[in-house]
Amino acid sequence: MRPVHSREWRLRSRPVGRPRDSDVELVDTSCPPPLPGFVRVANEVMSVEPYMRGRMGGEATYADPYPLDEPMLAPTVGRVTESADESIPVGALVLHDLGWREHSVVAASECRILDYDDLDPATHLGLLGIPGMTAWVGLTRIAPLESGDVLFVSSAAGAVGSTVVQIAKRMGATVIGSAGSPDKVDLVRDLGADAAFDYHDGPVKDQLRKALADVGATGLDVYYDNVGGEHLEAAIRVLNDHARIALCGMSSIYNASAPQPGPANLLKLIWRRARMEGFLLEDHLDGRDDFSRRMATWIRDGAVRSVHTDYPGGIAGAWPAFHGMLDGTSVGKAVVPLT
Amino acid sequence: MRPVHSREWRLRSRPVGRPRDSDVELVDTSCPPPLPGFVRVANEVMSVEPYMRGRMGGEATYADPYPLDEPMLAPTVGRVTESADESIPVGALVLHDLGWREHSVVAASECRILDYDDLDPATHLGLLGIPGMTAWVGLTRIAPLESGDVLFVSSAAGAVGSTVVQIAKRMGATVIGSAGSPDKVDLVRDLGADAAFDYHDGPVKDQLRKALADVGATGLDVYYDNVGGEHLEAAIRVLNDHARIALCGMSSIYNASAPQPGPANLLKLIWRRARMEGFLLEDHLDGRDDFSRRMATWIRDGAVRSVHTDYPGGIAGAWPAFHGMLDGTSVGKAVVPLT
Repeated sequence: MRPVHSREWRLRSRPVGRPRDSDVELVDTSCPPPLPGFVRVANEVMSVEPYMRGRMGGEATYADPYPLDEPMLAPTVGRVTESADESIPVGALVLHDLGWREHSVVAASECRILDYDDLDPATHLGLLGIPGMTAWVGLTRIAPLESGDVLFVSSAAGAVGSTVVQIAKRMGATVIGSAGSPDKVDLVRDLGADAAFDYHDGPVKDQLRKALADVGATGLDVYYDNVGGEHLEAAIRVLNDHARIALCGMSSIYNASAPQPGPANLLKLIWRRARMEGFLLEDHLDGRDDFSRRMATWIRDGAVRSVHTDYPGGIAGAWPAFHGMLDGTSVGKAVVPLT
Repeated sequence: MRPVHSREWRLRSRPVGRPRDSDVELVDTSCPPPLPGFVRVANEVMSVEPYMRGRMGGEATYADPYPLDEPMLAPTVGRVTESADESIPVGALVLHDLGWREHSVVAASECRILDYDDLDPATHLGLLGIPGMTAWVGLTRIAPLESGDVLFVSSAAGAVGSTVVQIAKRMGATVIGSAGSPDKVDLVRDLGADAAFDYHDGPVKDQLRKALADVGATGLDVYYDNVGGEHLEAAIRVLNDHARIALCGMSSIYNASAPQPGPANLLKLIWRRARMEGFLLEDHLDGRDDFSRRMATWIRDGAVRSVHTDYPGGIAGAWPAFHGMLDGTSVGKAVVPLT
């Protein structure tokens, strides 16, 4: 076993506002053979996700900041090429977090061998991965959805949102989605949403009211929030009694350099006896096997389909891909094929 | 059975901004004997509450506006002097909503016969009434409090807040309260709070951090919110993981003429996996008997004490009492003894 050539993205400075090219560097390096207890992985596809912006900055969020002058992290799927741990054979398809690089040496304990390895590797980063399970946890544990409910989801063409739309339809809900371009709105309808709108086309509150009228409903039972801000305030305006809001992300404020005021109508949460709850997937890993079985079945049945955007250019394309994802050019899960 | 002389407050015009004396009138009238199915009640004590301001105005909130030129409504405790319904005997102590008057004729179905009628009648409007049960529901059903938790409550010298402080201490929590005057802060400490501050003394966020340090804690497990606004944002800043916020009232915005921006830090609800839930007592009436039994035991044990402000002057004093309550001159439950 010898070192192999690899390229990796290192964080050079902490971005302020929008990340700049000078904040990172693509470095040629050598990936050593694995020491005992480790495996070497040839990475096939990596994920780019909004939360990475927070980890590049120095703020303490729910995840530690990326260290400076080291390669960044990203959920990544690859094949084991060398193993120095008996629990993981060469050839296994594994998921790990040491992305932003072509080859990774990973502790066996930090790798998960993937079932359902006949599926497109990107599926393990999307429907079967963090976004898919985030959708499922939100709809089953945080803002439990009942058949007949009216649900609204923002970023409905995104990795989480596109899964929320599909799961919610399967659960018997009426589904309204918002997205950021006409193409995305078409996709959301294709995925089964009963109504969808482009949030650029007018105030969210007006478009949401119109969408409710279009589906013959007067209010929301569940709002699955991926963006915060104007969407959240608009959703609170039209909650039904005992409505539930799952706070999954707030993309509208991730890039804001100053605090953004919150919804001015929280009093309505009292009148409507409504609940709003934030969650992180790491608290719900006990449900993973159950989730994976259901989702794999849905995928094989064709009941749920993978929606992902493959950014080009291999590892060199990962940084532009990250920007593209932040800029909203992706639909579904944003991934970077590395081979 | 003959008519009895009675005085009552009628609403003459809908107040704009602060209610004025010309909006109401104290009228001499005659209270007739009860028709079948009704009882006549000699009222002993009535409640004045913030929500009444909303019902005087014409806005639709969660409760209907008071009709013009009729006596207003208020939770009231009195003794039955004449009964034309076999379910309620003469001499029974009852709770009803036809206050703002000395004598009331009430449908038997709209009266509740009070157990524990040996207690001070004001107790039935406070600890054993809506404010007390609101405190209890918030701490047991909405933001469940565990022994060892750190709790913060705003308006801690108010009718609900003073009960929250006492129940939370009994449940084994560390308690921090905020209030609006030095005397109220002293009261909150007397009730058992581990720390208390006057929100006029500096930014709530700074005072809350200091209070946390004083009790040797780093964050909040439960925030019982009676005011919204700056308090809510300050509490969200220091939530522990899996914290719960009970939204009970937002007194900071009831009198605001324009919408007030909400907390700018809702993203923290995600990082902290925190929950925020509004509630109305009417959804929890199934718990009333259980609540009443516990609270009566606590009162008899001396574990919880009634905190109320008796405004003077009998029925003529009810309108000044309402203003005094709005101006924050009361501590605990604001009541008007009528006999």
